[in-house]
Amino acid sequence: MFAVLVQIHVKSEFVDAFIEATLDNCRNSVHEPGIATFDLLRAQDDPACFSLYEIYHMPEAQLAHRETAHYLRWREAVEPMMAEPRTFSKLDVLFHEEG
Amino acid sequence: MFAVLVQIHVKSEFVDAFIEATLDNCRNSVHEPGIATFDLLRAQDDPACFSLYEIYHMPEAQLAHRETAHYLRWREAVEPMMAEPRTFSKLDVLFHEEG
Repeated sequence: MFAVLVQIHVKSEFVDAFIEATLDNCRNSVHEPGIATFDLLRAQDDPACFSLYEIYHMPEAQLAHRETAHYLRWREAVEPMMAEPRTFSKLDVLFHEEG
Repeated sequence: MFAVLVQIHVKSEFVDAFIEATLDNCRNSVHEPGIATFDLLRAQDDPACFSLYEIYHMPEAQLAHRETAHYLRWREAVEPMMAEPRTFSKLDVLFHEEG
């Protein structure tokens, strides 16, 4: 089980459109069999700075996610909204349990 | 609902002790009524670099967490293990649902 933390800085005029497109991606992604968590977050000190917190059960699940219609639709929709290239951190999950 | 992302860089000789102390904190914290998620993560490119990903239902839940015996025990145990002061990001949760 591993996590991917994606940091996304959006141009301010696209904030609402980015949220709409990304909620569509989250709602579909969280139902993929290999995905445990697919959270959308916004920094409290910068309303144009978002994070995705994604937990995958195994490496193949991330590859499968990147071939889904909802991921491809999201990637195309948000590409012009980015203020800078998004960054990725890969993390091993040492504890994850729903409260 | 909001999240706190804590970045913790540990002195290399304390990595195992830090994991043990933090798993104790996670296992107890996730059962607090105001906490939805309390994940422990380790950067794949730096085995001494950890994150805590904590989701609270409301602000009071974070205050209550900081008064629990397991939080106070954790804070005291890990204080000498830090390579540098830990950093905190506060994030609004726009989507969180278990897959």
